[in-house]
This record gives sequence, C-alpha cells and structure tokens, in this order.
Amino acid sequence: MTVTAAVMPGPNEPIELREFADPVLEDGSILLQTIASEVCGTDVHLQQGRLDGVPYPIIPGHVSVGRILEMRNLTQDALGNELAIGDTVTFYDVHEICNSCYYCTIARQPNRCPSRRVYGITYSASDGLLGGLSQQIYLKPGVRVLKLPDEIDSDDLIGGGCGLFTGFAAVERSDLQMGDVVIVQGSGPVGLCAAAFASMRGAAIVIVIGAPKTRLDLALTLGADIVLSIEDKTTQCRLEKVNDITNGRGADVIIEASGNPNALPEGFSLLRDGGIYVIAGHFTDAGSCTINPHIDINCKHADVRGQWGTDFHHVASALRMLGKHNKQFPFRDIIGSRYKLKDAQKALDDVAALRVTKAIIDPN
Amino acid sequence: MTVTAAVMPGPNEPIELREFADPVLEDGSILLQTIASEVCGTDVHLQQGRLDGVPYPIIPGHVSVGRILEMRNLTQDALGNELAIGDTVTFYDVHEICNSCYYCTIARQPNRCPSRRVYGITYSASDGLLGGLSQQIYLKPGVRVLKLPDEIDSDDLIGGGCGLFTGFAAVERSDLQMGDVVIVQGSGPVGLCAAAFASMRGAAIVIVIGAPKTRLDLALTLGADIVLSIEDKTTQCRLEKVNDITNGRGADVIIEASGNPNALPEGFSLLRDGGIYVIAGHFTDAGSCTINPHIDINCKHADVRGQWGTDFHHVASALRMLGKHNKQFPFRDIIGSRYKLKDAQKALDDVAALRVTKAIIDPN
Amino acid sequence: MTVTAAVMPGPNEPIELREFADPVLEDGSILLQTIASEVCGTDVHLQQGRLDGVPYPIIPGHVSVGRILEMRNLTQDALGNELAIGDTVTFYDVHEICNSCYYCTIARQPNRCPSRRVYGITYSASDGLLGGLSQQIYLKPGVRVLKLPDEIDSDDLIGGGCGLFTGFAAVERSDLQMGDVVIVQGSGPVGLCAAAFASMRGAAIVIVIGAPKTRLDLALTLGADIVLSIEDKTTQCRLEKVNDITNGRGADVIIEASGNPNALPEGFSLLRDGGIYVIAGHFTDAGSCTINPHIDINCKHADVRGQWGTDFHHVASALRMLGKHNKQFPFRDIIGSRYKLKDAQKALDDVAALRVTKAIIDPN
Amino acid sequence: MTVTAAVMPGPNEPIELREFADPVLEDGSILLQTIASEVCGTDVHLQQGRLDGVPYPIIPGHVSVGRILEMRNLTQDALGNELAIGDTVTFYDVHEICNSCYYCTIARQPNRCPSRRVYGITYSASDGLLGGLSQQIYLKPGVRVLKLPDEIDSDDLIGGGCGLFTGFAAVERSDLQMGDVVIVQGSGPVGLCAAAFASMRGAAIVIVIGAPKTRLDLALTLGADIVLSIEDKTTQCRLEKVNDITNGRGADVIIEASGNPNALPEGFSLLRDGGIYVIAGHFTDAGSCTINPHIDINCKHADVRGQWGTDFHHVASALRMLGKHNKQFPFRDIIGSRYKLKDAQKALDDVAALRVTKAIIDPN
Repeated sequence: MTVTAAVMPGPNEPIELREFADPVLEDGSILLQTIASEVCGTDVHLQQGRLDGVPYPIIPGHVSVGRILEMRNLTQDALGNELAIGDTVTFYDVHEICNSCYYCTIARQPNRCPSRRVYGITYSASDGLLGGLSQQIYLKPGVRVLKLPDEIDSDDLIGGGCGLFTGFAAVERSDLQMGDVVIVQGSGPVGLCAAAFASMRGAAIVIVIGAPKTRLDLALTLGADIVLSIEDKTTQCRLEKVNDITNGRGADVIIEASGNPNALPEGFSLLRDGGIYVIAGHFTDAGSCTINPHIDINCKHADVRGQWGTDFHHVASALRMLGKHNKQFPFRDIIGSRYKLKDAQKALDDVAALRVTKAIIDPN
Repeated sequence: MTVTAAVMPGPNEPIELREFADPVLEDGSILLQTIASEVCGTDVHLQQGRLDGVPYPIIPGHVSVGRILEMRNLTQDALGNELAIGDTVTFYDVHEICNSCYYCTIARQPNRCPSRRVYGITYSASDGLLGGLSQQIYLKPGVRVLKLPDEIDSDDLIGGGCGLFTGFAAVERSDLQMGDVVIVQGSGPVGLCAAAFASMRGAAIVIVIGAPKTRLDLALTLGADIVLSIEDKTTQCRLEKVNDITNGRGADVIIEASGNPNALPEGFSLLRDGGIYVIAGHFTDAGSCTINPHIDINCKHADVRGQWGTDFHHVASALRMLGKHNKQFPFRDIIGSRYKLKDAQKALDDVAALRVTKAIIDPN
Repeated sequence: MTVTAAVMPGPNEPIELREFADPVLEDGSILLQTIASEVCGTDVHLQQGRLDGVPYPIIPGHVSVGRILEMRNLTQDALGNELAIGDTVTFYDVHEICNSCYYCTIARQPNRCPSRRVYGITYSASDGLLGGLSQQIYLKPGVRVLKLPDEIDSDDLIGGGCGLFTGFAAVERSDLQMGDVVIVQGSGPVGLCAAAFASMRGAAIVIVIGAPKTRLDLALTLGADIVLSIEDKTTQCRLEKVNDITNGRGADVIIEASGNPNALPEGFSLLRDGGIYVIAGHFTDAGSCTINPHIDINCKHADVRGQWGTDFHHVASALRMLGKHNKQFPFRDIIGSRYKLKDAQKALDDVAALRVTKAIIDPN
Repeated sequence: MTVTAAVMPGPNEPIELREFADPVLEDGSILLQTIASEVCGTDVHLQQGRLDGVPYPIIPGHVSVGRILEMRNLTQDALGNELAIGDTVTFYDVHEICNSCYYCTIARQPNRCPSRRVYGITYSASDGLLGGLSQQIYLKPGVRVLKLPDEIDSDDLIGGGCGLFTGFAAVERSDLQMGDVVIVQGSGPVGLCAAAFASMRGAAIVIVIGAPKTRLDLALTLGADIVLSIEDKTTQCRLEKVNDITNGRGADVIIEASGNPNALPEGFSLLRDGGIYVIAGHFTDAGSCTINPHIDINCKHADVRGQWGTDFHHVASALRMLGKHNKQFPFRDIIGSRYKLKDAQKALDDVAALRVTKAIIDPN
C-alpha cells in the first residue's frame, strides 16, 4: 500500500501528487489519517521561495486534524488524556525543541530554539509524511498530540488553523488589560483570531482594520465591535475614527496581523502614548518601512513586541478557549473552501489571490 | 534686590543675562539659592529650536541643586524628611501632573500626562525663576523637593544630572535580569548613567558603545566592563565582538542612549532573539531610520520599548542608589567643566561641540 | 428645605433618619439626587463596630447611582465625558488620595495611601451628605464621577455594587491566564462579580464554592461553569471534584471572596503547585487561621496576594466591561430586594442574615 | 578499583563509608573526581527522616565541584563552553525534568515537575554515585554541567553551595526594585546568599535578621547594610528599628530564609503595606503558624510568594553573578570547616548544632 501526498518540489514549482510507502512506526509515534489540513499564507510564501533553509521537496501543511490509525506504545496525549485508535486529534507542528539551549533554559523562549523543526515547513519529503497535505501524517515520537474534546469539531479548529495559535499568542503577548481599546490590523485568519481572543481576554472595544468587506463582516462575528476598511477609507479617516472612539488618545493595544510593512506607520499613528504594539503578522520578509524613533517609540513611550511563532502552551490553551467559546465565535466560518488533495495547487492559488480566507484540504 | 538669570530669548538666539525681581513666596513654595545646575543636550536642542511648544523666552536648566533660602509653610520634603533653611536639596523638574487624566489614572503612565510641565523647558521666563540657570530658583507649591542626604555631595548628583534619572528609568524599563549581557549605545551622560545602573541592577557584562576615548574611559569607571569605539571600529567589528562575548547570540538587553536614529539598525543586529531594546536617547526629533519589521522585530521576537522622561519614583529611587553607590561609581567625574552664569553660552557651545560631557553652571 | 438621610449613630445602634440642611456647593462639586445605593457586608460590619477609626455618626452607603441636581463649575466627568444636569452618574467612593506619599508615588499603590477617605465609611455625618443612604449625595471637589453610558442601566451597576469593583480588582490581581481553571470561594456579591470577571478575562473553567443554592444558581448565570455547595458537600468532596477537573493538579487561580479565615486551608488544598491565590474577601478582621508555610506556600511555590480595596482604574475599567457584557451577565439579578430609606435597618438586617444577596436602598 | 562514598543508610542512622564499583560510563555521561561537596541543612533533615519519599540508603550531597576524570561523547557544557578532561565543573543537582508535563509546558514552572529527581536526595545509593559525598560523582546523560570560569575558584562556589542558587532564586522571585529596603530573615547560607544577591540586584538597604553574631558579622561582608540579632533584641526592638529606617512603613521586600514558621508573624509585622514576602527557607515541614488573613494579607495588600527549589537558569545566572562579584562578596568565607569523607557524620552534627555555617567535605 502507498500513501498519496501533495509535494512542493521547489520554489516556484507547482504542487505534485506523490506516492509514499506506508510508514513503519517507531516507539512513541502515531499515524494519523488526515481529516483536514489548512493552507495558509505561509504555504504560499513557501511556494514562492520566500523562506530560508526550506529542504525542498516538502509536504506542506503545518496545522491539521486527523484520526488515529495506529500508535506505538503511547497511551496519553500531551495533557494526559487517554488516547485510543479512532480518536480525533490535532498536534503541535513545532517539534525537536532541544530543552537545553540558551533559549530553552535561560531565556525561556523556546520559540527561538535553533533546533526547532516545524511540520510542513522544515522537514523534507524524504524525511517521511511530515506535512498535512497527505492522506496520512506520521507523528514522530515526542510530537505533542492533543485529543479534540467532544465539544470541538474539526472545523472549529481547522477554521482558525495556525491563525488560532498565532492570534492567541499575539493577544497573550499584548498584555491587554480589561477595558482596553484594541486594534487589529489585518483581517486574514491571524487577524480574525486575534480579534476573537482579544474579545475573550477582556478588551472593551475591538477594531479590525482590513479588507475585503466579506472578511470584515466575518470579523464582526469573531469579536470585532467595529471594522474599518482599507479599501474605502483613508488612513486619515481611520485615524479620525479611532480618535473619536478614544477621546483623541489612540488605541491601548494594536496587533499587526497583516504582514505588510506599510501597516507600521499607520499603526504608530493609531497607538496611544504608552500603548503596546504587537508585530505578529510578518512571517516572511516583505520588506522594510521607515519609522521615527523619537516620535514613534521614545516620545510615545511605546512598547513594540514581536511575536514569533508559538510555544506549546499557546496551542493547548487556545484549544481550551476554543472549547469554551466556539458557540459564540464561529471559527469554522473562516473556512472559505474545501479542496481535495489533487486540487491543492488551486487551494494555494486561491489563498495567494485572497479569494478565500482559509482554504482547507481534505486529503481522503 | 534682583536675581540674575540666564535667559534663552528664542530659537537660535544667544543666551542673555537678565535681572528678575525677588520672588514673593506663595504658601507651600521654596526659594533656593542655586548651587549648581547642569547644561545637557536638551538645552542645546532648546537653543536650536528643535522642541515644539517652548514658551520662549525661558530660563533653561532642568536639574539643579540648591540651598534653601526661604520656605513658606513647608516642613518636609517629598519623602517625609524634615527640611530646614540652609539644607541642600534637589527637586523633580516635572511639575503640574494632573493626577486625574487617563494617563495618570487608567494607564498609570504619568510621564505622558498632557498637563505635565517641566522646569527649564516648558515654563516661560515671565512665569518666574523656573529654570536652573539662575542665582535663585523658585519651587512652586507642589514641586517635589528632595533633601540630599549627607552621603551625597552636590557634585555626585549634578555630575549625572538628568542623565541619572533618565539612565535609571531606561534600566528599569529594560527589565534586565541578573546575569544579562547589556549594551548601552551612547557614551553621553544618559549612556554613562545607564551603564552604571545596569551594573547596579545585576548585569553580568555591560558594554558601552560610543566615543570619544575619554568618554569610554569614563565609562569603564561607571559600570562598563567593555567599551567599543564608534571611531576606530566598524559596525562589523562591534558585531563580531558582541558575538564573541555571547556565543553568537547577541545582547540580552540594549539601551539606546545616543539619540541618533542610525543607532537602531546596528542595535537590532546586536540584539539577541527575544531581547529587549529600550529607546531612551531620542529627546528630540533627529530624523528617521529604516527597519525591517519581519527581521528586526517579528522573527527576532524582540521587545522595543520607548522610555519617555521620568516619573518621580525614578528620581527618588535613583537618589537612594546614588547614596549607596557613589563611592563605587564616580558620577561626579562626568562633570567636564564648570561655568559662571555669564559663560552659560560657552557652556552650551561646549556641550553642542561635545567638548565636555557634562557642563555645570555655578550661578553664584 | 432639608434632606433626609439614614444615619448610623454608633456601633451596635440602630439606623436613624435625620434631616440635614441643603448643602451649599463649592467650586467643582456636584449634588446628586440618589437613585439607588447599596447595602453591603461592610455596612453590616460598620454597624457591628468591627472597623477601626470610623467617625460615628456616619451616613453609610459607599456605592451609589444618582442624578445630577446641581454642579458648580464642572463640565466633564473623570474620563472627559460631558456632564449635564439630569445625567445619571456613579462615583468612586474613595477620595482625598494625596498623590504625594510613598504609596502614591514610589510604590504606586494608591489603595494604601494613608490619606484615603471613603464615602459612607470614613466621613462623619457632620462632614455633610457624604454617604449614599441619603436623598442627596454631595460630591466634594475632586470626587471622581463617571457618567453611566446609555447601555448601562442603574440596576446593572448597583446590582454588583462595590462587589463589581472589588471583583474586578481581584481578577486583575490574579493575573489569570487564558485557559486557566479558576475557583472563587464565596458566593456573595464579591464572589459573584469575581466569577463574572474571571469568565470575561479568559478563564476556561470557573468554579464557585458557596451557599445557599439560590446564590449558586445565580453564579451559574454570572460566569460560573460549575458550582460546589458548602452546605451539602464536604471539603473532601470539593477536593475530589476539583482534582477530577484538573487531572489531580488543583486550580490555577483561586479568589477568596468569603471573608472567612477558614476558607484558607481549603483554598490551599485546592490550589495547584505554582498557583495564585488572591485574598479579596476579608474587609474586616474575622480572626485567624493556621497555615503551614512549608506545605502551603514554599513547597507549593504558591503566590498569595491580598487585594485591598480598589484604585480608580478598577472602577472605570469595570464600568467599561459592564457596558460591553451586561447582556450576557445579568448583574442586576444580584439585587435581592429594594428598600425605602426608612427601612434601611431592615435592609441591613436582611444582609446580615444572608436573606438577600444585595440590598438596594431607593431613598427618594 | 573501587570508589568510597559516605552513605546515609536510613533515617536517624549514622553515616557509613561504603565502597562502590567503578562506574561504567554511558554515552553523554561524565565521571567527576570530587573536589568539594557541601553539607547543608537539608542533609541534616535527610538524616532526621523529615523528607518524604527518600529512597534510603542514599549518598547525600547535592551541590559539588569536581574535576572531569572521564566523559563519553560529550564536548560542551550546558552553556556551550568546551569541556576537557581535568576541567573544574559544577552541575545542576536537579535532573530528569520531563519537559512535557503541565508544569514544564503550560505553567512553565519546571521546579514543580513531578519527574524531577535530585542528586544526593532522591536517588538511591543503589542507583550509582549520584551524590556528592563520594570520591567520584557520576553525571548521568543530560545532567547539566557547568565549567567554572577561571575567575571562580571552587571555594567561591561551594561556600555558598545550594544557598547560592536558592538565594538567587528568592531574590529573583521577590521582584525587588532598585532602591528597595529588603529584610532577610535568617543568617544561614540561604539568608547570607539572599542578602548578597539583594545587594547586587539594587536594594538600597539590606537588613539581615539572625544569629549568632559570627554569622551576622559575615552578613555585613555579604551585602547586609544592617544586622539585627534575634538573640539580644526582641521582636519589638526589631520592629522599631525597621520603622526608624523606613519612616514607619516597613520593608518593601522580605525574604524568609530561616525555615522557622515563627518567622512569619514577625515578617508580616515588618512588611510594608503592598510589600512582597518570599518564603524561601522551608525546605522541610517545620510545623505551622497562625496568620490573620485580613490583617496580614488582605488589608496589607501583601504578596506572599513561595520559592520552591530552583530552575537551571537560576544556577547558570547565579554563576555569572558570582564570577563578576566574588571579589566584592566573599562567599568562600561562609565555609566554616572542611572535613574528610570519614568525618562526614561530624560535619552533619556540626551543621545540625549550628557550629558551622557551611560544612565542606573534601572526599579525596
């Protein structure tokens, strides 16, 4: 028997379907039948060759939900819940954190551990079924698997996808206080999820700036109290609106989730003195921008915080929040379209063209 | 009787000596005979007209030490110590914080209170003797005065001057951890004081980057373990040196105290992933710089924090630290030259030309 | 004309109605017609003489809502909103914070400022209409008044009453993380409000421990996911239940809101290693308890935090949260019964006997 | 060949010397020739049978310095420094942290990981040479070893011993601010080291409370500015002295390092409102004490924090601090007496009787 997976052969080359031998399980490993895997902006960047050190060919797909087909000498998930064949699970895409380097031990920032490997991104197709765009996914020993509780449907999780965890991490990084006015720049999956978590975290007013209108409408169901379009409004209009809402002060917290360097100058103009600005949406190098250290940071007494990737606790806690709030916040509605494995390239094209917010691959 | 003060008539106009009427004391006010007042880079910027909203003509001089000549219905300093005629005191230059705005109450960042006024900067000469370059200084009711304890000589305090409080605030803002490697960019009074406080706070290694050699030599007596010149070394050299010291990681904390926008790109290159970068040295608009949000902030998981001015607690706590550590850290040695009131313009010129690190005016 | 107010003449003496002269307004003051004022547990303690330094006779009532009858040279509330005669407002009961002591400036904990005075508690009836159980309330210059936005009805605010602000402060003090399991000990107004804010702040599971059943039922509408009775369950039962929920670890955060010293030993047994325990419910001395520093604190790596009173920011932010969430959390349902001024003693008796959760006085 | 080690056969049984076979090295392991190992209060408690779950017989000794005799496929220490045969190293006594439980991943408090094992305490003598009171120590694969830099002599490190790391952790846990008044309760190794680190961290005044006079004299060389004896002064005297120093407020931070439950009531009386109280000195159950939750915690707005053991970062950072400050703070002077392996019981007896502050075993 073989397993079919979608392979990205190299930068700027189209997705190909390839057959892989059935994996042989090591001790502590799990084999999943893939239920759904997401296509996100990073997958587009991978195809465009914009990330360094990617060991092409790769099987893309970093956030997935699957059903346990087989497991070897494993009885519990990463939180101690019992696991059984047939259980629906997700897993933390980041793996091989060393627990011994300066980042893991002294800085306690394992998201910057240099040994860190990521499913669907930093593993080669020759390393095995280590990406989600595949009928089966091989979870190496030590991969942190999480059983989905009954109240969470696959679509709840895959709708947010990696944006769920990145959005959670961005909100946590923002240290937002109850009662704050929060702006989210960007209405893609990261921005939408950040809006939802900002609301769950106690923001009094959540403003999402983005486009197109369909995404802004979605934002209004996912925690946004106010949406401001970048299509039909100018920066000046948005500044006036935010000043109206905040007695001229600006937002307490801004989360940059667009990945566009040009968002920063607007962000600084919308941030109140002493505010916090989380830069969460730049997972690839999209160029530079000009800032004025005196005006934007020093005199503003601003705090500008990058959030790189996630730790496992972001994933586990986001899942707990999802289980509690998925009635109120329909993350599943972020799913724009579902594709078969053979249409993976079309999914990537649709995401690249912003035709869908979140594209889902159902490989089986 | 009259009081002689140095007046800055307007932007780009030379200092003039003017005579003022003896002040009449309100309830809760103090009249000081000035012992010493500093001339700092901000005074140069004031003369160059680079700050907005300055009510020229002004009496410059924001940090001073004086002797109590007279006081009206006041018995204690801002920390509850008894005050008597003849006592040597300093005072917190910032005044008229409202204690009721959003910044004072909700944000708890009174350094951004819009009512904030500053001795020697935002008061006009027509408002009275509200600047330090004067034989006498009038402390309005509510100005926070601090008695110098016996173990602190005037020169200890005025040597650091406002740099003492700004340097303290920058180190506090950096949240540096014991054992950290800290870089200070800039070897002026703010940089030198930041180096000293970084050392007092528990940095394992303090690196000062600056020029000229005389200032770097001074840095070595004020907490710096290593100094790197911007004159005889390239950015690449400095990067290699920092990488040598940190096993290739970069510094845990960087404090920008040069006020030069071009320091930022170098700073980002010297900062480790997950590090903290405090922008403390931009008290006037010196222009812009280019950053890459992905590389410098997001992927680096950096935290870039502006520190604007000071709160009173910075001043009071810096003074306590000074009293404890002035034997070990000779802040008085930052004093480059002493000037009479009539030579105030020369003092400004010497500071502008970097001929002295800290110029001191002795108006009496 | 005169104003009728309920006066507590001294410890263990019944409430009397007394007539007061119409107040003459100072500059910056406001006169309110009282809409509603709460009777809380502290009022019972006041009547029992259990607080030190109370200047009997007093007009009790610290949290109130009123209508502006008159104001003198005042145009805005404490957040800069325009004020007009007839507006419905509340106000921060704490007043005369000095903004100059060690607590106000260095420690930045104004809730411990020794000059702090509190409406309805530390002002004497001879000082004026400075308590809520009165037809009119005189707001001295500087009292922080807050206009109720349209979306907040008086009953929303007065239902939570001071518990709203104390509950908010307790949750803020707990630093709870998204996804945490939170236990609230106590189902009085403070406990109920703490449960609601814990939910708004991102707790995954909120457990309220208390009695009687009516209050626990109310808790289930105010953020509690699970309620545990102290009447029909033993400590051991509650411990087993919490262990079931947390895989044997215990709660991440516990908020003590019962004011009973005996709650602490149970609390420590329910707290996970490394957890945070906020002691918010002891506004009077109810005696001692025994703890084991090794087992309860050191070995448990616990963090036990007292929360004394509130700052203004708690009040202002709680109000913003109330405006956003009053549809979801019916704070108005905490109101147990409404009383006329002449029945104030009965209100106090009903609160003392736990016959009502929150008693409301309508003095007009 | 055999190796001689001191073995604690069981509770309340005297130390015996036993011979062990030469260890066979696994991959990643190191064999040390012991230079020095400490005897601390915990070793006394171990002999008294006061810790739970100890797998007697054990080889005690958790903090040691040794010389590398042999290593198998290892080239670097835990911070990336090159290792060679003959190097002088120390190692982190805590081992087998799982990096996967709730404490390791979600709570990020690995000091509470249930898999945590400790050299000299939780390993049995039948597990190998896993304690310091032995001619040789076997460092299992994964034990974090740290090369002593040239500037640190063995005696610098072993003088502080485990107190160095516990004292560091206690000061870190206290979040002390520059300028704070800090009290350390206890003048044993933990208290002395806490005093030294409090000073290095920026305390303005460090007060050590303890006995006997020889230890208090030592404290004055290790960061204490003031010492207060528990022998010749009453609690009331100490309270008055602290009030004198703090204008009647009490200390900003107190670190309990005596391990005596009776220290808590005194500690609460010496702590200022809003202060932080770290309970670091209770590594065994020494009984209970009575506290008043209202007066001691709630009304005081206190923050009482247990510190259990250490993380690796405490050890690594403490070592960096030691290398910088060992000229100023003579940790080596804490060494009271040196013993041969055959006199290990006498060392334990001397520590138990407080005849020496820190007893050192030189097993070779």
